[in-house]
Amino acid sequence: MRLRHKPWADDYMKENNHVVVQKPFDFKGNWQANFKNEQPLHLEIGSGKGQFIAGMGKQHPEYNFIGLERVKSVIVGALRKVLDAETDNVRLINEDAADLRDLFGTSEIDHIYLNFSDPWPKTRHEKRRLTFSAFLEQYEDVLKDEGKLTLKTDNRGLFEYSLASFSQYGMIIEEVNLDLHAVEDPLNVPTEYEEKFAAKGQPIYRCKVRFKS
Amino acid sequence: MRLRHKPWADDYMKENNHVVVQKPFDFKGNWQANFKNEQPLHLEIGSGKGQFIAGMGKQHPEYNFIGLERVKSVIVGALRKVLDAETDNVRLINEDAADLRDLFGTSEIDHIYLNFSDPWPKTRHEKRRLTFSAFLEQYEDVLKDEGKLTLKTDNRGLFEYSLASFSQYGMIIEEVNLDLHAVEDPLNVPTEYEEKFAAKGQPIYRCKVRFKS
Repeated sequence: MRLRHKPWADDYMKENNHVVVQKPFDFKGNWQANFKNEQPLHLEIGSGKGQFIAGMGKQHPEYNFIGLERVKSVIVGALRKVLDAETDNVRLINEDAADLRDLFGTSEIDHIYLNFSDPWPKTRHEKRRLTFSAFLEQYEDVLKDEGKLTLKTDNRGLFEYSLASFSQYGMIIEEVNLDLHAVEDPLNVPTEYEEKFAAKGQPIYRCKVRFKS
Repeated sequence: MRLRHKPWADDYMKENNHVVVQKPFDFKGNWQANFKNEQPLHLEIGSGKGQFIAGMGKQHPEYNFIGLERVKSVIVGALRKVLDAETDNVRLINEDAADLRDLFGTSEIDHIYLNFSDPWPKTRHEKRRLTFSAFLEQYEDVLKDEGKLTLKTDNRGLFEYSLASFSQYGMIIEEVNLDLHAVEDPLNVPTEYEEKFAAKGQPIYRCKVRFKS
Protein backbone atom coordinates (compact mmCIF):
# COMPACT_ATOMS: atom_id res chain seq x y z
CA MET A 1 0.00 0.00 0.00
CA ARG A 2 1.42 3.35 -1.06
CA LEU A 3 0.83 6.16 1.35
CA ARG A 4 2.07 9.18 -0.60
CA HIS A 5 -0.49 11.79 -1.61
CA LYS A 6 -3.38 9.88 -0.18
CA PRO A 7 -6.22 12.26 0.64
CA TRP A 8 -7.50 9.85 3.30
CA ALA A 9 -4.37 10.55 5.40
CA ASP A 10 -5.93 13.72 6.86
CA ASP A 11 -9.15 11.89 7.67
CA TYR A 12 -7.24 9.00 9.22
CA MET A 13 -5.33 11.36 11.49
CA LYS A 14 -8.46 13.31 12.47
CA GLU A 15 -10.33 10.10 13.28
CA ASN A 16 -7.48 9.25 15.61
CA ASN A 17 -7.00 12.63 17.21
CA HIS A 18 -6.52 10.90 20.57
CA VAL A 19 -3.10 9.96 19.13
CA VAL A 20 -2.30 12.63 16.51
CA VAL A 21 -2.70 15.82 18.50
CA GLN A 22 -4.64 18.55 16.69
CA LYS A 23 -3.51 22.17 17.17
CA PRO A 24 -0.36 21.04 18.95
CA PHE A 25 1.01 24.57 19.41
CA ASP A 26 -1.87 25.20 21.84
CA PHE A 27 -0.38 22.64 24.22
CA LYS A 28 2.94 24.44 24.73
CA GLY A 29 3.78 24.10 28.43
CA ASN A 30 0.77 21.89 29.07
CA TRP A 31 1.50 18.60 27.29
CA GLN A 32 0.75 16.44 30.29
CA ALA A 33 -2.94 17.39 29.80
CA ASN A 34 -2.88 15.11 26.74
CA PHE A 35 -1.99 12.01 28.74
CA LYS A 36 -3.78 9.79 31.23
CA ASN A 37 -0.93 9.91 33.75
CA GLU A 38 1.43 12.76 34.55
CA GLN A 39 4.85 11.13 34.13
CA PRO A 40 8.21 11.90 32.49
CA LEU A 41 7.86 13.17 28.93
CA HIS A 42 10.07 11.71 26.19
CA LEU A 43 10.27 13.30 22.74
CA GLU A 44 11.46 11.74 19.49
CA ILE A 45 12.37 14.25 16.79
CA GLY A 46 11.71 12.69 13.39
CA SER A 47 9.64 9.61 14.19
CA GLY A 48 9.40 8.30 10.63
CA LYS A 49 7.29 5.18 10.40
CA GLY A 50 7.03 4.97 14.17
CA GLN A 51 8.56 1.62 15.09
CA PHE A 52 10.70 3.27 17.77
CA ILE A 53 8.06 5.45 19.42
CA ALA A 54 5.42 2.68 19.38
CA GLY A 55 7.91 0.15 20.76
CA MET A 56 9.15 2.52 23.45
CA GLY A 57 5.58 3.37 24.47
CA LYS A 58 4.86 -0.29 24.98
CA GLN A 59 8.15 -1.00 26.76
CA HIS A 60 7.86 2.01 29.08
CA PRO A 61 4.32 2.57 30.39
CA GLU A 62 5.95 4.71 33.11
CA TYR A 63 6.79 7.45 30.56
CA ASN A 64 4.74 9.59 28.18
CA PHE A 65 6.01 9.80 24.60
CA ILE A 66 5.64 12.32 21.84
CA GLY A 67 6.74 11.60 18.28
CA LEU A 68 7.32 14.59 16.01
CA GLU A 69 7.21 13.95 12.24
CA ARG A 70 6.63 16.53 9.56
CA VAL A 71 6.04 14.17 6.62
CA LYS A 72 2.35 13.30 6.43
CA SER A 73 2.78 10.23 4.23
CA VAL A 74 5.17 8.81 6.82
CA ILE A 75 3.40 9.72 10.06
CA VAL A 76 0.27 7.80 9.08
CA GLY A 77 2.46 4.69 9.25
CA ALA A 78 3.55 5.73 12.73
CA LEU A 79 -0.09 6.22 13.69
CA ARG A 80 -0.91 2.70 12.57
CA LYS A 81 2.00 1.30 14.62
CA VAL A 82 0.90 3.21 17.73
CA LEU A 83 -2.69 1.97 17.33
CA ASP A 84 -1.45 -1.60 16.80
CA ALA A 85 0.71 -1.36 19.92
CA GLU A 86 -2.45 -0.64 21.95
CA THR A 87 -0.56 1.66 24.26
CA ASP A 88 -2.13 4.87 25.53
CA ASN A 89 1.02 6.83 26.41
CA VAL A 90 2.12 7.90 22.89
CA ARG A 91 1.09 11.04 21.04
CA LEU A 92 2.13 12.14 17.55
CA ILE A 93 2.61 15.61 16.13
CA ASN A 94 2.51 16.22 12.36
CA GLU A 95 4.30 19.56 12.16
CA ASP A 96 7.49 21.02 10.77
CA ALA A 97 8.71 22.64 13.96
CA ALA A 98 11.49 25.05 13.01
CA ASP A 99 11.77 25.98 16.68
CA LEU A 100 10.86 23.41 19.34
CA ARG A 101 10.23 26.28 21.74
CA ASP A 102 7.03 27.04 19.82
CA LEU A 103 5.74 23.59 20.78
CA PHE A 104 7.20 23.00 24.22
CA GLY A 105 7.64 25.08 27.33
CA THR A 106 10.88 25.58 29.24
CA SER A 107 11.99 22.37 30.99
CA GLU A 108 8.90 20.49 29.78
CA ILE A 109 10.80 17.49 28.36
CA ASP A 110 12.76 14.78 30.21
CA HIS A 111 14.44 13.00 27.30
CA ILE A 112 15.00 13.72 23.61
CA TYR A 113 15.73 11.04 20.99
CA LEU A 114 17.37 11.71 17.66
CA ASN A 115 17.19 8.54 15.59
CA PHE A 116 18.91 8.28 12.21
CA SER A 117 18.49 11.97 11.48
CA ASP A 118 19.40 13.34 8.06
CA PRO A 119 23.23 13.58 8.11
CA TRP A 120 23.46 16.60 5.76
CA PRO A 121 27.02 15.60 4.85
CA LYS A 122 27.98 18.78 2.99
CA THR A 123 29.80 21.33 5.11
CA ARG A 124 27.61 24.13 3.81
CA HIS A 125 24.58 22.27 5.24
CA GLU A 126 26.05 22.00 8.74
CA LYS A 127 23.33 24.27 10.12
CA ARG A 128 20.64 21.80 9.10
CA ARG A 129 22.07 18.93 11.15
CA LEU A 130 19.93 18.34 14.23
CA THR A 131 23.05 18.44 16.39
CA PHE A 132 24.16 21.89 15.19
CA SER A 133 24.58 24.34 18.06
CA ALA A 134 21.38 26.30 17.26
CA PHE A 135 19.37 23.09 17.76
CA LEU A 136 21.25 22.25 20.95
CA GLU A 137 20.15 25.63 22.28
CA GLN A 138 16.51 24.66 21.67
CA TYR A 139 17.02 21.28 23.36
CA GLU A 140 18.63 22.94 26.35
CA ASP A 141 15.61 25.20 26.76
CA VAL A 142 12.89 22.56 26.49
CA LEU A 143 14.78 19.88 28.49
CA LYS A 144 14.76 19.72 32.25
CA ASP A 145 18.11 20.44 33.92
CA GLU A 146 18.74 16.75 34.48
CA GLY A 147 17.27 15.84 31.08
CA LYS A 148 19.12 13.68 28.56
CA LEU A 149 19.48 13.32 24.84
CA THR A 150 20.08 9.99 23.08
CA LEU A 151 21.37 9.91 19.53
CA LYS A 152 21.44 6.83 17.30
CA THR A 153 22.76 6.78 13.77
CA ASP A 154 24.51 4.59 11.23
CA ASN A 155 26.14 7.66 9.69
CA ARG A 156 29.77 7.96 10.71
CA GLY A 157 30.15 11.58 9.67
CA LEU A 158 27.08 12.69 11.60
CA PHE A 159 28.19 10.81 14.70
CA GLU A 160 31.73 12.24 14.61
CA TYR A 161 30.31 15.72 14.10
CA SER A 162 27.72 15.33 16.84
CA LEU A 163 30.17 14.21 19.53
CA ALA A 164 32.37 17.25 18.86
CA SER A 165 29.34 19.56 18.63
CA PHE A 166 27.90 18.33 21.95
CA SER A 167 31.27 18.72 23.64
CA GLN A 168 32.00 22.16 22.22
CA TYR A 169 28.56 23.35 23.30
CA GLY A 170 29.48 22.32 26.85
CA MET A 171 27.38 19.16 27.08
CA ILE A 172 28.57 16.09 28.95
CA ILE A 173 28.93 12.77 27.13
CA GLU A 174 27.70 10.09 29.51
CA GLU A 175 27.96 7.04 27.29
CA VAL A 176 29.23 6.11 23.83
CA ASN A 177 28.54 2.89 21.93
CA LEU A 178 30.29 2.41 18.58
CA ASP A 179 28.66 -0.89 17.66
CA LEU A 180 25.28 -1.11 19.32
CA HIS A 181 24.43 -4.49 17.83
CA ALA A 182 27.75 -6.19 18.66
CA VAL A 183 26.09 -7.41 21.86
CA GLU A 184 22.35 -8.04 21.94
CA ASP A 185 20.56 -5.49 24.09
CA PRO A 186 16.98 -6.61 24.79
CA LEU A 187 16.10 -3.05 25.90
CA ASN A 188 17.15 -1.43 22.62
CA VAL A 189 14.13 -0.61 20.46
CA PRO A 190 15.40 -0.49 16.86
CA THR A 191 13.97 1.82 14.22
CA GLU A 192 13.08 0.48 10.75
CA TYR A 193 16.33 1.89 9.33
CA GLU A 194 18.35 0.47 12.18
CA GLU A 195 17.12 -3.08 11.57
CA LYS A 196 18.00 -2.82 7.91
CA PHE A 197 21.52 -1.45 8.44
CA ALA A 198 22.37 -3.64 11.40
CA ALA A 199 21.34 -6.71 9.38
CA LYS A 200 24.00 -5.76 6.80
CA GLY A 201 26.59 -5.84 9.59
CA GLN A 202 27.14 -2.09 9.55
CA PRO A 203 27.85 -0.53 12.94
CA ILE A 204 25.12 1.49 14.64
CA TYR A 205 26.45 4.33 16.80
CA ARG A 206 24.73 5.60 19.94
CA CYS A 207 25.52 8.18 22.57
CA LYS A 208 23.76 9.52 25.60
CA VAL A 209 24.50 13.11 26.59
CA ARG A 210 23.20 15.79 28.93
CA PHE A 211 23.51 19.49 29.51
CA LYS A 212 25.44 20.72 32.48
CA SER A 213 23.06 21.66 35.26
CA MET B 1 67.00 -10.54 15.98
CA ARG B 2 65.45 -11.02 19.41
CA LEU B 3 65.84 -8.07 21.71
CA ARG B 4 64.56 -9.45 25.00
CA HIS B 5 67.05 -9.81 27.85
CA LYS B 6 69.95 -8.65 25.76
CA PRO B 7 72.65 -7.29 28.01
CA TRP B 8 73.90 -5.07 25.18
CA ALA B 9 70.66 -3.03 25.34
CA ASP B 10 72.00 -0.92 28.22
CA ASP B 11 75.27 -0.32 26.39
CA TYR B 12 73.43 0.55 23.17
CA MET B 13 71.33 3.14 24.99
CA LYS B 14 74.32 4.61 26.82
CA GLU B 15 76.29 4.90 23.59
CA ASN B 16 73.38 6.89 22.20
CA ASN B 17 72.70 9.09 25.19
CA HIS B 18 72.16 12.01 22.84
CA VAL B 19 68.83 10.26 22.08
CA VAL B 20 68.04 8.17 25.18
CA VAL B 21 68.24 10.75 27.92
CA GLN B 22 70.13 9.61 31.02
CA LYS B 23 68.82 10.71 34.43
CA PRO B 24 65.65 12.10 32.86
CA PHE B 25 64.12 13.16 36.20
CA ASP B 26 66.86 15.81 36.45
CA PHE B 27 65.38 17.58 33.43
CA LYS B 28 61.97 18.26 34.97
CA GLY B 29 60.98 21.77 33.91
CA ASN B 30 64.08 22.10 31.71
CA TRP B 31 63.56 19.69 28.80
CA GLN B 32 64.29 22.26 26.12
CA ALA B 33 67.95 22.13 27.26
CA ASN B 34 68.10 18.68 25.63
CA PHE B 35 67.27 20.00 22.17
CA LYS B 36 69.05 22.07 19.58
CA ASN B 37 66.11 24.45 19.11
CA GLU B 38 63.59 25.66 21.66
CA GLN B 39 60.25 24.79 20.03
CA PRO B 40 56.93 23.18 20.99
CA LEU B 41 57.36 19.95 22.95
CA HIS B 42 55.33 16.88 21.98
CA LEU B 43 55.22 13.80 24.21
CA GLU B 44 54.20 10.26 23.28
CA ILE B 45 53.32 8.05 26.23
CA GLY B 46 54.19 4.43 25.39
CA SER B 47 56.35 4.71 22.28
CA GLY B 48 56.80 0.99 21.71
CA LYS B 49 59.04 0.28 18.75
CA GLY B 50 59.14 3.94 17.81
CA GLN B 51 57.73 4.11 14.30
CA PHE B 52 55.40 6.96 15.31
CA ILE B 53 57.86 9.12 17.22
CA ALA B 54 60.64 8.68 14.62
CA GLY B 55 58.21 9.42 11.77
CA MET B 56 56.76 12.44 13.53
CA GLY B 57 60.24 13.78 14.29
CA LYS B 58 61.10 13.60 10.62
CA GLN B 59 57.76 15.06 9.46
CA HIS B 60 57.83 17.92 11.97
CA PRO B 61 61.28 19.48 12.37
CA GLU B 62 59.48 22.49 13.89
CA TYR B 63 58.62 20.49 17.06
CA ASN B 64 60.66 18.67 19.69
CA PHE B 65 59.53 15.14 20.53
CA ILE B 66 59.91 12.94 23.57
CA GLY B 67 59.00 9.26 23.54
CA LEU B 68 58.36 7.58 26.88
CA GLU B 69 58.65 3.79 26.98
CA ARG B 70 59.25 1.67 30.06
CA VAL B 71 60.05 -1.64 28.32
CA LYS B 72 63.77 -1.81 27.64
CA SER B 73 63.58 -4.58 25.04
CA VAL B 74 61.15 -2.43 23.06
CA ILE B 75 62.74 1.00 23.39
CA VAL B 76 65.99 -0.17 21.80
CA GLY B 77 63.91 -0.72 18.65
CA ALA B 78 62.64 2.85 18.95
CA LEU B 79 66.22 4.04 19.38
CA ARG B 80 67.22 2.32 16.15
CA LYS B 81 64.29 3.91 14.29
CA VAL B 82 65.18 7.37 15.60
CA LEU B 83 68.83 6.92 14.57
CA ASP B 84 67.78 5.65 11.14
CA ALA B 85 65.48 8.67 10.68
CA GLU B 86 68.53 10.93 11.10
CA THR B 87 66.45 13.52 12.85
CA ASP B 88 67.83 15.49 15.81
CA ASN B 89 64.56 16.57 17.44
CA VAL B 90 63.57 13.28 19.14
CA ARG B 91 64.54 12.12 22.62
CA LEU B 92 63.59 8.87 24.34
CA ILE B 93 63.03 8.12 28.01
CA ASN B 94 63.27 4.59 29.35
CA GLU B 95 61.34 4.95 32.61
CA ASP B 96 58.17 3.68 34.22
CA ALA B 97 56.74 7.06 35.14
CA ALA B 98 53.89 6.47 37.57
CA ASP B 99 53.42 10.21 37.75
CA LEU B 100 54.33 12.38 34.75
CA ARG B 101 54.74 15.33 37.12
CA ASP B 102 57.98 13.75 38.34
CA LEU B 103 59.37 14.07 34.81
CA PHE B 104 57.80 17.28 33.54
CA GLY B 105 57.14 20.71 34.95
CA THR B 106 53.81 22.52 34.95
CA SER B 107 52.77 23.55 31.41
CA GLU B 108 55.98 22.15 29.93
CA ILE B 109 54.27 20.08 27.20
CA ASP B 110 52.35 21.28 24.11
CA HIS B 111 50.88 18.01 22.89
CA ILE B 112 50.43 14.50 24.30
CA TYR B 113 49.94 11.38 22.16
CA LEU B 114 48.40 8.16 23.42
CA ASN B 115 48.79 5.53 20.72
CA PHE B 116 47.23 2.09 21.06
CA SER B 117 47.49 2.11 24.83
CA ASP B 118 46.67 -1.02 26.81
CA PRO B 119 42.83 -1.10 26.91
CA TRP B 120 42.57 -2.81 30.31
CA PRO B 121 39.08 -4.09 29.40
CA LYS B 122 38.05 -5.34 32.82
CA THR B 123 36.04 -2.85 34.85
CA ARG B 124 38.17 -3.49 37.92
CA HIS B 125 41.21 -2.31 35.94
CA GLU B 126 39.64 1.01 34.93
CA LYS B 127 42.19 2.92 37.00
CA ARG B 128 45.02 1.56 34.86
CA ARG B 129 43.64 2.96 31.60
CA LEU B 130 45.68 5.97 30.50
CA THR B 131 42.47 7.98 30.06
CA PHE B 132 41.26 7.41 33.63
CA SER B 133 40.62 10.67 35.46
CA ALA B 134 43.76 10.41 37.64
CA PHE B 135 45.90 10.38 34.48
CA LEU B 136 43.92 13.25 32.95
CA GLU B 137 44.83 15.24 36.05
CA GLN B 138 48.52 14.64 35.33
CA TYR B 139 48.10 15.63 31.67
CA GLU B 140 46.30 18.80 32.67
CA ASP B 141 49.21 19.77 34.91
CA VAL B 142 52.04 19.14 32.46
CA LEU B 143 50.19 20.49 29.39
CA LYS B 144 50.07 24.15 28.49
CA ASP B 145 46.61 25.78 28.73
CA GLU B 146 46.12 25.57 24.99
CA GLY B 147 47.78 22.13 24.84
CA LYS B 148 46.13 19.16 23.14
CA LEU B 149 45.93 15.41 23.50
CA THR B 150 45.55 13.02 20.57
CA LEU B 151 44.40 9.44 21.14
CA LYS B 152 44.56 6.67 18.56
CA THR B 153 43.37 3.13 19.16
CA ASP B 154 41.81 0.13 17.45
CA ASN B 155 40.11 -0.84 20.70
CA ARG B 156 36.43 0.04 20.65
CA GLY B 157 35.93 -0.30 24.39
CA LEU B 158 38.88 1.95 25.21
CA PHE B 159 37.73 4.58 22.73
CA GLU B 160 34.13 4.61 24.01
CA TYR B 161 35.42 4.85 27.58
CA SER B 162 37.91 7.58 26.76
CA LEU B 163 35.42 9.90 25.04
CA ALA B 164 33.11 9.72 28.07
CA SER B 165 36.04 10.07 30.49
CA PHE B 166 37.41 13.16 28.69
CA SER B 167 33.96 14.76 28.62
CA GLN B 168 33.13 13.98 32.23
CA TYR B 169 36.47 15.42 33.31
CA GLY B 170 35.47 18.66 31.58
CA MET B 171 37.71 18.36 28.52
CA ILE B 172 36.58 19.56 25.09
CA ILE B 173 36.42 17.11 22.18
CA GLU B 174 37.68 18.97 19.13
CA GLU B 175 37.65 16.19 16.58
CA VAL B 176 36.57 12.56 16.30
CA ASN B 177 37.45 10.10 13.54
CA LEU B 178 35.87 6.64 13.67
CA ASP B 179 37.67 5.19 10.67
CA LEU B 180 40.98 6.92 10.25
CA HIS B 181 42.04 4.85 7.25
CA ALA B 182 38.77 5.17 5.31
CA VAL B 183 40.36 8.13 3.56
CA GLU B 184 44.11 8.28 3.02
CA ASP B 185 45.69 10.97 5.17
CA PRO B 186 49.28 11.63 4.07
CA LEU B 187 49.95 13.42 7.36
CA ASN B 188 48.95 10.48 9.56
CA VAL B 189 52.04 8.67 10.89
CA PRO B 190 50.92 5.12 11.67
CA THR B 191 52.35 3.04 14.49
CA GLU B 192 53.43 -0.56 13.89
CA TYR B 193 50.19 -1.85 15.45
CA GLU B 194 48.12 0.57 13.43
CA GLU B 195 49.53 -0.67 10.12
CA LYS B 196 48.77 -4.26 11.07
CA PHE B 197 45.18 -3.61 12.18
CA ALA B 198 44.30 -1.19 9.41
CA ALA B 199 45.54 -3.73 6.83
CA LYS B 200 42.95 -6.18 8.19
CA GLY B 201 40.27 -3.59 7.48
CA GLN B 202 39.56 -2.93 11.14
CA PRO B 203 38.64 0.67 12.00
CA ILE B 204 41.21 2.85 13.73
CA TYR B 205 39.67 5.46 16.03
CA ARG B 206 41.22 8.86 16.73
CA CYS B 207 40.21 11.89 18.71
CA LYS B 208 41.81 15.20 19.51
CA VAL B 209 40.88 16.85 22.80
CA ARG B 210 41.97 19.73 25.01
CA PHE B 211 41.45 21.00 28.51
CA LYS B 212 39.33 24.06 29.07
CA SER B 213 41.52 27.09 29.56
